[in-house]
Amino acid sequence: VLPDLTLSDTVVVSTELGDVLQGSAVIVSATPSSFVRSTLKKAAASGAISASPLCISVTKGLEDRTMKRMSEIIAEEIPGARIAVLSGPSHAEEVCRRLPTAVVSAAPDLAIAEAARDLFSTPYVRIYTQRDLTGVELGGTLKNVYAIACGISDGLGFGDNTKAAIMTRGLNEMARIGVKLGGNLVTFFGLTGMGDLIVTCLSRHSRNRALGEKIGQGKTVAQALAEMTMVAEGYKTAPPAFALAERIGIEAPLIRETYRILYEGKKPRQSLTDLMKRELPNEWQGLEIKL
Amino acid sequence: VLPDLTLSDTVVVSTELGDVLQGSAVIVSATPSSFVRSTLKKAAASGAISASPLCISVTKGLEDRTMKRMSEIIAEEIPGARIAVLSGPSHAEEVCRRLPTAVVSAAPDLAIAEAARDLFSTPYVRIYTQRDLTGVELGGTLKNVYAIACGISDGLGFGDNTKAAIMTRGLNEMARIGVKLGGNLVTFFGLTGMGDLIVTCLSRHSRNRALGEKIGQGKTVAQALAEMTMVAEGYKTAPPAFALAERIGIEAPLIRETYRILYEGKKPRQSLTDLMKRELPNEWQGLEIKL
Repeated sequence: VLPDLTLSDTVVVSTELGDVLQGSAVIVSATPSSFVRSTLKKAAASGAISASPLCISVTKGLEDRTMKRMSEIIAEEIPGARIAVLSGPSHAEEVCRRLPTAVVSAAPDLAIAEAARDLFSTPYVRIYTQRDLTGVELGGTLKNVYAIACGISDGLGFGDNTKAAIMTRGLNEMARIGVKLGGNLVTFFGLTGMGDLIVTCLSRHSRNRALGEKIGQGKTVAQALAEMTMVAEGYKTAPPAFALAERIGIEAPLIRETYRILYEGKKPRQSLTDLMKRELPNEWQGLEIKL
Repeated sequence: VLPDLTLSDTVVVSTELGDVLQGSAVIVSATPSSFVRSTLKKAAASGAISASPLCISVTKGLEDRTMKRMSEIIAEEIPGARIAVLSGPSHAEEVCRRLPTAVVSAAPDLAIAEAARDLFSTPYVRIYTQRDLTGVELGGTLKNVYAIACGISDGLGFGDNTKAAIMTRGLNEMARIGVKLGGNLVTFFGLTGMGDLIVTCLSRHSRNRALGEKIGQGKTVAQALAEMTMVAEGYKTAPPAFALAERIGIEAPLIRETYRILYEGKKPRQSLTDLMKRELPNEWQGLEIKL
């Protein structure tokens, strides 16, 4: 079904998409989320894309307004593409140093997930396959909001207990949202959910966590943003994530409070008080699953 | 059903169990796991235990040889006890400082879990209820083995990606073992599973992680143990956990390799190579659940 794929040892660099794509059996989509659609439109217009290319998306995010996932955009702009998503806990700095890393290749058709896996597997990068494209993409996106919440907790001077609570309850929220949208529950507890959440919430290098930390330390959101040299994706993800949870009727107190701190000037300590004083539910209340 | 419970403001300290237990409606079992049965035997023999006491277990571990969970021991030694388990990510040092903390109270009868919850809830300790006693107890026990594995990774100089992979795949292992033993899948992804795993695997204060780090740095297990001033529970848990997984037919490569490093002199780097070169499965292969 799929072409015999090997990584080329010839590197072509060009500002002309047509030159780059000509004859490519594999396309890796790695632009920031806000440029995925426009880049693919140019690619399609170039006429250089082969009939059924293997398109591997490594971008995390939701399209503004439409809230579409990256694979949905690819499917719309490159009809016939065989789409896989690579995601999981993988700081590029560590992969370069060949430190052991495990990630996921996802596609509803496992043969496509396996083709992407076989292209990128090495003795130090272990790639598991998954059919749940929706869950894999949502995990990578929503985790950035919880990373900001963890940073706020750090900035307030709270400890491991608080952070473990935010991460665990955040994952619970993420799973409830994802299951409602058609994702598989277990995906959120795998490498692209919990695994990526761990790396993002705990790393000193995470921009999302760093943004939250500044806010927790008492800076205004505007001050904190001004001090960032790069964009913290979770800041942009919070409004659509909050709107999405509201639209599908999922109670998501951590996303809601993070949104209110970021966009409505709510004080972090007030959010924390509000979070702690809610009713004490059963741990998995609201997760509509049969076990 | 349950007595009207309030925490006493009178503290009685005694070496006589009968004096301490006389008239107590609530008993908190908090001894090390290896002393739970003998302590409860003495308590029962004292004749001071009321008819149906609320017994709250906060001990994590499995009984040597029988591999029984603490609640099973309580049920055997104090027939008629109403048993709840308190567990979750809660460094005592942080709870003392009133840092926000979230844990779980578990009992098959939710009214018992809620009675324990109501005794210990404060504005800074949020307690969720759960029916899954088996899953809650297994999570607290097995996590200590993975914490040693994370420490070994740290000692070898590996990074966030590797640690996230060990934690995520360890949780997958723990869930497969726990589900086979009658626990609920989601319990392992909650505060007493993932949440506690996060705190234990990442904390600088974790004795289990510290033991693994020394071994990863090249010390022999004997040297590493000799340098510990306190017992690392995961060291004692690894053999029964390994035996348990074998007995129930669950593939648990992380427990197996940690066991081999701790008890069979296997080199950590060899274990890592063996772990990375296995077949590349579907992410949730072997987890027999319907979703």
